[in-house]
Amino acid sequence: MNQAEEANETARLETFSDGVIAIAITLLVLEIHVPDSAEVAEHGGLAQALVDLYPSYLAYVTSFVTILIMWINHHTIFRAIARNDHYLFVFNGLLLLGITFVPFPTTVLAANLEGADSDVASAFYAGTFAVTAVFYNLLWRYAATGNKLLRRDINPAFVSTINRRYLVGVPVYSLAAVVAFVNPDVSFGICAALAVLYLLPTKVEPVTRA
Amino acid sequence: MNQAEEANETARLETFSDGVIAIAITLLVLEIHVPDSAEVAEHGGLAQALVDLYPSYLAYVTSFVTILIMWINHHTIFRAIARNDHYLFVFNGLLLLGITFVPFPTTVLAANLEGADSDVASAFYAGTFAVTAVFYNLLWRYAATGNKLLRRDINPAFVSTINRRYLVGVPVYSLAAVVAFVNPDVSFGICAALAVLYLLPTKVEPVTRA
Amino acid sequence: MNQAEEANETARLETFSDGVIAIAITLLVLEIHVPDSAEVAEHGGLAQALVDLYPSYLAYVTSFVTILIMWINHHTIFRAIARNDHYLFVFNGLLLLGITFVPFPTTVLAANLEGADSDVASAFYAGTFAVTAVFYNLLWRYAATGNKLLRRDINPAFVSTINRRYLVGVPVYSLAAVVAFVNPDVSFGICAALAVLYLLPTKVEPVTRA
Amino acid sequence: MNQAEEANETARLETFSDGVIAIAITLLVLEIHVPDSAEVAEHGGLAQALVDLYPSYLAYVTSFVTILIMWINHHTIFRAIARNDHYLFVFNGLLLLGITFVPFPTTVLAANLEGADSDVASAFYAGTFAVTAVFYNLLWRYAATGNKLLRRDINPAFVSTINRRYLVGVPVYSLAAVVAFVNPDVSFGICAALAVLYLLPTKVEPVTRA
Repeated sequence: MNQAEEANETARLETFSDGVIAIAITLLVLEIHVPDSAEVAEHGGLAQALVDLYPSYLAYVTSFVTILIMWINHHTIFRAIARNDHYLFVFNGLLLLGITFVPFPTTVLAANLEGADSDVASAFYAGTFAVTAVFYNLLWRYAATGNKLLRRDINPAFVSTINRRYLVGVPVYSLAAVVAFVNPDVSFGICAALAVLYLLPTKVEPVTRA
Repeated sequence: MNQAEEANETARLETFSDGVIAIAITLLVLEIHVPDSAEVAEHGGLAQALVDLYPSYLAYVTSFVTILIMWINHHTIFRAIARNDHYLFVFNGLLLLGITFVPFPTTVLAANLEGADSDVASAFYAGTFAVTAVFYNLLWRYAATGNKLLRRDINPAFVSTINRRYLVGVPVYSLAAVVAFVNPDVSFGICAALAVLYLLPTKVEPVTRA
Repeated sequence: MNQAEEANETARLETFSDGVIAIAITLLVLEIHVPDSAEVAEHGGLAQALVDLYPSYLAYVTSFVTILIMWINHHTIFRAIARNDHYLFVFNGLLLLGITFVPFPTTVLAANLEGADSDVASAFYAGTFAVTAVFYNLLWRYAATGNKLLRRDINPAFVSTINRRYLVGVPVYSLAAVVAFVNPDVSFGICAALAVLYLLPTKVEPVTRA
Repeated sequence: MNQAEEANETARLETFSDGVIAIAITLLVLEIHVPDSAEVAEHGGLAQALVDLYPSYLAYVTSFVTILIMWINHHTIFRAIARNDHYLFVFNGLLLLGITFVPFPTTVLAANLEGADSDVASAFYAGTFAVTAVFYNLLWRYAATGNKLLRRDINPAFVSTINRRYLVGVPVYSLAAVVAFVNPDVSFGICAALAVLYLLPTKVEPVTRA
């Protein structure tokens, strides 16, 4: 296989992943339950019914931003990954499995953020992100260890920055999952804070500029 | 990063956005509620039941055309945007957050266009477009201020045309949201009229022809 | 705009359309209602309940094949269309509006193929395809009249073949919609037959081979 | 049509297929039913309600991995297929019909894995994969017989490896469908085992390296 074909291979992996992530992020809106007329009456009008959906909006925005960051990260590491092999497809598939699952814990959280089971719902939500972060690390480390699948002109500072950043996700989301049983709001707050934090840019480029 | 890589970067941002917008526009059809046999009987036959769904069709077509125009606009401004950076991803993400949310107010509007809460539903609908228009302006102005991310051969008349056109959306949709509390039909009419209006083409090209 | 940019413009239109059509075709499966335990009991077991869903399978396959053909046609005519302008986006958008609507009449048909309202359901189903065929003709004739947006080396035999093929859809689907009120099964049979018929290939290439 | 145009043709077929498969794989999550408050109470709390959804998780993961493998296979055979014709579109469409149907038997299986109808549900699930495997063979053999649509420099060992691998799917999934009536768990176990088995890589490249 020549270089052009290699580039094309990675391209189709990225396109497919983009498609899956784009769908997962858009399906999130389906979790926001449209109140029927009985529910509107119960809330004393549509305005109040829409306001009382705020747990759904919070969960929606947090999951949206988190998946968006996962996509930006995917985009970033595939600027560094130049080759692919069968197991890259498998690890990438595991990551997509994690990402497509997100709408489910999001809906569970939105339905329970206010109730007696908010601890379990928050732990389930944070736990899903912890597992997805594990899958991210598997994908990246498989590709990056010994520069196995990275471009030959890769900037080592880029690799070590990504390595460092990716160390944060697993323990912090795991911590959030445990904290949920003490204080569910703090648990959810950690997930939301991580989403904001990850919006900050990486300073290092995959290739040093001439 | 060289020019070819830059082009590729913007390409993936556009492809992902295209995917998200394509899904949001297609999910709209799920808001049209298929009448079950009890509802058909209540309306005195399927024909009448389908006719009585007209608020759903109106909301469907208006939201479809509005999202379509958002896509055409996205396409237009990315003919002018040649470079990207981290914050372009963030502002683009905000815009996508607004667009993917549209199916929700659309369903709320369709369910309430005829009822006592049509004012709130219309205001919520127009308000969503007002917020999305704000996100559009953030994206465009971030890219265009000082030609920060625009192509070097950009036609200044194109930039000022887009600047002018984008000024309209926020105040008019905001006005429609306020008007909803006076007359919900006029509010929805403004949204529908804007959709038709925006179907008119921009006359100015991003690059002047030789 | 140079040739390369023009190609890129059409490319993004095609990619977006592909995305929308891909989603519409995949959403069809959501119309097949999974029987719950009460329904299973009513049908005397899951096997019978699944068999009794045959109207859903028929509607699913017919709509799937029809949308697939619409995609193949879209693909075919865009091998001939080399340039684009604002109204091409608008007409293409109208066509997409028709295609994304298909899951709704499909579900209505599946729910009513067996009941007293099968005439209305079949007419609604065939009528949707008639309207979509009108949109297809608008798109094609806008692009093809005077070779306005076609490639310069276009094979005139290709244009006239497409012109002839596209004349069939509107009257036949309209006929099927009318026939529904006489015999709904014949109406649905016409739609299914057209799907099979259109699977036959066009013999003429857009460009004559050297 | 020259070589570049041919490549472009296959590209759009692949992109559309990628889109459809990406959506089918992502829709799977919608089959996981979010327990409402009555169901949570019935299960004695949210934690138990989430644990009791394990048939949904099993069906979700198995279908996800199976569709992922279908995509990887699609990707693999289209590295060998260089040309396309109308019937390749038709056979590819049949395959997509099979793949987009998967969410339905997945939901049926998840709802019945534990009940009296688990035999029918498992047979339906395995049977769907058997039919999809038939469609895969039709697509591949249409393209590969006499190297009809394969690249000219194709490695014959690649063709015979794919031929051999694809022989396995149809009989094994058919066997699993029959076994379901003896032991539903074994039937589902065969489907899950095949998913894992197919994750092992093909050793042979479509083109021999120089």
